[in-house]
Amino acid sequence: MDIKKPTLVIDQARVIKNIQRMKEKIDHSSEPIRFRPHFKTHQSHQVGQWLREQGIEDIAVSSIDMAYYFYKDGWQDITLAILANPLQIEAINDLSSNLNLNLLVDSKEMVAFLKHQVKQKLKIWIKIDTGYHRTGIQWDQTKSVYELVKMINSASELEFIGFLTHSGHSYHAGSVEEIERIYHDTVSKLNQLKKELEKKGIYPIEISIGDTPTCSVMKQFYGVSEIRCGNFVYYDLMQLFLGACREEDIAATVACPVIAKYPQRNEIVIYGGAIHLSKESLPTKDNHRIFGFVALPKNNFKNWGNYIKGTFISSLSQEHGIIKTNKEFIQQVKVGDILMILPVHSCLAVHCLGNGDGALLFDYFN
Amino acid sequence: MDIKKPTLVIDQARVIKNIQRMKEKIDHSSEPIRFRPHFKTHQSHQVGQWLREQGIEDIAVSSIDMAYYFYKDGWQDITLAILANPLQIEAINDLSSNLNLNLLVDSKEMVAFLKHQVKQKLKIWIKIDTGYHRTGIQWDQTKSVYELVKMINSASELEFIGFLTHSGHSYHAGSVEEIERIYHDTVSKLNQLKKELEKKGIYPIEISIGDTPTCSVMKQFYGVSEIRCGNFVYYDLMQLFLGACREEDIAATVACPVIAKYPQRNEIVIYGGAIHLSKESLPTKDNHRIFGFVALPKNNFKNWGNYIKGTFISSLSQEHGIIKTNKEFIQQVKVGDILMILPVHSCLAVHCLGNGDGALLFDYFN
Repeated sequence: MDIKKPTLVIDQARVIKNIQRMKEKIDHSSEPIRFRPHFKTHQSHQVGQWLREQGIEDIAVSSIDMAYYFYKDGWQDITLAILANPLQIEAINDLSSNLNLNLLVDSKEMVAFLKHQVKQKLKIWIKIDTGYHRTGIQWDQTKSVYELVKMINSASELEFIGFLTHSGHSYHAGSVEEIERIYHDTVSKLNQLKKELEKKGIYPIEISIGDTPTCSVMKQFYGVSEIRCGNFVYYDLMQLFLGACREEDIAATVACPVIAKYPQRNEIVIYGGAIHLSKESLPTKDNHRIFGFVALPKNNFKNWGNYIKGTFISSLSQEHGIIKTNKEFIQQVKVGDILMILPVHSCLAVHCLGNGDGALLFDYFN
Repeated sequence: MDIKKPTLVIDQARVIKNIQRMKEKIDHSSEPIRFRPHFKTHQSHQVGQWLREQGIEDIAVSSIDMAYYFYKDGWQDITLAILANPLQIEAINDLSSNLNLNLLVDSKEMVAFLKHQVKQKLKIWIKIDTGYHRTGIQWDQTKSVYELVKMINSASELEFIGFLTHSGHSYHAGSVEEIERIYHDTVSKLNQLKKELEKKGIYPIEISIGDTPTCSVMKQFYGVSEIRCGNFVYYDLMQLFLGACREEDIAATVACPVIAKYPQRNEIVIYGGAIHLSKESLPTKDNHRIFGFVALPKNNFKNWGNYIKGTFISSLSQEHGIIKTNKEFIQQVKVGDILMILPVHSCLAVHCLGNGDGALLFDYFN
């Protein structure tokens, strides 16, 4: 490989292992669960292909452009896993005339809008808030949910499928046990709601969950019909810090050229900044921020070694990254070397190194 | 304008005013100063054109790809305002055969490398560290600087031009007075170094500075030969908080559709997240983070009103932004409306909404 500037590098073997591990866990559930991986993490034809080879047929995306990209790539069942945007109704109608499109709603206003605007059959999930408090109807608002279901089912082109949530608060958990508790809590709340609605004659009701932390730490899934995690294909430092992956599961790095070193302050400067890694960061115990870990390339940049202890990106400007390190490591590195940066949040770093709005594949597999 | 998804909106009149204000201040200096605006902020043919119309001929960029983009757009004198990356020597040679290319160095290793690799005349600036501590030789290391100048001048294809610094620590200043002090301090240090080198027979020596905060707050420039600020064309919340611009100078916003509102917790959710605004944030007094301010569109999205008091983006995920607001504002807003988000850091938001590596123009002027 010929790397001259910040470049996304994917470890194919690790990606495939990550996919297989999650797929097997889902396949071995006591009840059948649909695996609908979220493609916003990789936004890639190639990774999609690897998922297809493992038997995946249903996917989630986070934008209309991404839906078009993967529709053109042959995917026929897509959940647009963000509340439906009324301004994009034309594209929604166009897409749904070509594939099974699943939309998310959480308000009467949006259902009323869709009822009047939709031209083809659309599958509708109600977004439920089980504790993350970003979007969705509060899980215990049974009456609101019931009224919304009735409204959906009264529209001939809308088909109510079930309840969908994203327990994003798992990203703020302090331990693996807390992540597991969030899974149990999420599933319990959604199943209580489901039971209430079943009492009122609504049947069948699917349940879809999707955050990578809970999906990674749970040894056995139960109480759900669908799993939509996405980050698990690559993982990253955020998942590592949470205990949701091991270092050897991280499958995406950004290769960055060293452009300066300052032994007097134990700092290395790379060509690689906020526009390549994103400004996502993690706090350290002593109130600093970490913007990435550092590893050395192996096998002509196809893989990388373990991250270097006591070494991290301490700040990022638009194109520069400052690495804080120690005497030993700084002596091994010279200007013109390539360092492999483990990103804090692989979804954002991959998007940065991709192509614009995320609709197109970044061609990193040559 | 037909806005359906997160879209960069530029206020042309404000951009031109911002350009004219800076240009006039530079033109009215007691000594002649070259204005070499940094194009990494806008990365745009159109804004470059407005700068050209104000008499600008020399520019700075932050990547080889950006240099190519603006070379193809007719710019003939370009500073690659990041330490030269030895891995891109082929492109450096190619570019310098077509235009006046200015490079930055701060080490003997890099000068030795360039000496052997460079094929056409290259102008060389020595990067000096006057207090930001990102890259550059410490300003008081006269001997190191002198040796580097001699080394540059001993290479027939390299021409030493002068000292270049970026006083990025002005972004951490607590007041306008502190920003002014950073200007005085920067200029004083660079001129002391210049005097020392002149004593040793090095002449002429140019001085180039460029951070937008000092360039914006200073009423009169002195002690420099060149000014390279970039952010001033658009400004943003970071500059507003620093006191480096007024609200009515901010010329870039991101128009984002409202996809949900939650009156019970005074929150609005927009389709517009970290991949559109970047995760750059500013701290509030009570230890929260601000990821953007919110304004209403005017004149069919060509402009926007003042930012709404007590209303800000409190968190961003990949495509979602959560706006914290009050009862009054939430009542005015409905799903499907467009809100204009003032970004924390316009350079990063513009890059997000641009095209990949920043080499291409985002076509937002239709």
